[in-house]
Amino acid sequence: MKRTATARWNGDLKEGKGSISTQSNTLAETPYSFNARFAEGTGTNPEELLGAAHAGCFTMALSAALTQQGFTAGSLETKAIVTLDPVALQISGISLELNASLIEGLTEEQFQGVAQAAKENCPLSKALSAVPTTLTVRYQ
Amino acid sequence: MKRTATARWNGDLKEGKGSISTQSNTLAETPYSFNARFAEGTGTNPEELLGAAHAGCFTMALSAALTQQGFTAGSLETKAIVTLDPVALQISGISLELNASLIEGLTEEQFQGVAQAAKENCPLSKALSAVPTTLTVRYQ
Repeated sequence: MKRTATARWNGDLKEGKGSISTQSNTLAETPYSFNARFAEGTGTNPEELLGAAHAGCFTMALSAALTQQGFTAGSLETKAIVTLDPVALQISGISLELNASLIEGLTEEQFQGVAQAAKENCPLSKALSAVPTTLTVRYQ
Repeated sequence: MKRTATARWNGDLKEGKGSISTQSNTLAETPYSFNARFAEGTGTNPEELLGAAHAGCFTMALSAALTQQGFTAGSLETKAIVTLDPVALQISGISLELNASLIEGLTEEQFQGVAQAAKENCPLSKALSAVPTTLTVRYQ
């Protein structure tokens, strides 16, 4: 199963301009730039897109894991915070912050176990195993 | 430097529905679903967003590396192809396919060297070091 995206860049780093498109046209020549990435310019940047991919993957994986155990997720909401070290030019950490609604018959301890396993096993987490990743859970 | 994105999911894996938003509002409650990921449903999916992040990061890094060496990129276009193994639930590979316009004074061999170094060193490549990644270059 192959999914694609395309980035274009014209010119040098600071004055040049880029755009990113995805196969589904969710991004369609969406602008990105040095300022959108390293300062407060408008437009998207690779780190928020990585956060979107990871949050999306983890949250779907958690729903799947709950289904496998005979439960149905109510509301799951995960914020991914991607930290870029602009000096080392390295993604130094990802924090996943999950807010989940209570599920009848599933204790907080059990839910924590399912959530931590989903965090370890979702495809994006495995691909990002080089990055320290934390998960905090609010289940109420 | 922190960049954020949020995913929401309601319900089980196959019938449930999700949405993804990013800090810049490039994605704003953008739908994603089991079918958008594992079949041919409409909407985005984590793998194309990962491809967008990686293509965007690599292409900007290459522009920066060319600048550092005293050259200015003309047109750079990178397609990222992310392969998901749906049985192993694992991202089994990423292919970066670069099309670049000729730069005066820079041979193909030199350009290849700069591009391969950018592929090794961009923050997304380092974060994704667990995933086999290839780069092919067309420089003409």
